[in-house]
Amino acid sequence: MERIPILKLGSLLLVTIQVDMHDQLAMTLQDDLTERIVKDRARGVLIDISALDIVDSFIGRMISNTAAMARVLDARTVLVGMQPAVAITLVELGMTLTGVKTALNVEQGVLMLKNP
Amino acid sequence: MERIPILKLGSLLLVTIQVDMHDQLAMTLQDDLTERIVKDRARGVLIDISALDIVDSFIGRMISNTAAMARVLDARTVLVGMQPAVAITLVELGMTLTGVKTALNVEQGVLMLKNP
Repeated sequence: MERIPILKLGSLLLVTIQVDMHDQLAMTLQDDLTERIVKDRARGVLIDISALDIVDSFIGRMISNTAAMARVLDARTVLVGMQPAVAITLVELGMTLTGVKTALNVEQGVLMLKNP
Repeated sequence: MERIPILKLGSLLLVTIQVDMHDQLAMTLQDDLTERIVKDRARGVLIDISALDIVDSFIGRMISNTAAMARVLDARTVLVGMQPAVAITLVELGMTLTGVKTALNVEQGVLMLKNP
């Protein structure tokens, strides 16, 4: 699959990452997402990683960058569905995802974005 | 990835299919989804296939079966994000997805499920 779908939920965009990200796919996602934030006037972005068992430093950095891009476009990003093992790995890799908010699941993330 | 994540949005469940389905993955999805419908007392299921460029008879049948299973559990299924080429293929394959409602995108699907 060449693209990760971006779903619109009201004023929010939802991205579910299910596949291992490689460079090109990550770049495409960032292009698509920034374009959609502007086009759909989105105020928030939910990135669901519940399907990921492992997150390496590449994906960690990609998520941080995507959140930073959304921020300069005036949209807030919430990372949802992180598995415990992923949290452990991220901290062990020294990636604390500064500036990225997290929530337990999509529902909590939606609440967080709707009630800042 | 062994599992397709099922996201809860209020009383609805959202499944985004991004990868090519093989037998085992489809069976796992059906098991997980029926379990979640009961556990979360879901009234509706949204299946997003916007990432799929092709849908073969196996996936078509899987979607029909999943919708039938949801129906007997008192949840309605809406298939969203179908690409034009997929619609052409499905009809050419003789699969008209009887009993499966469709909507243009997730937003329309949510509206359809919330206002029956």
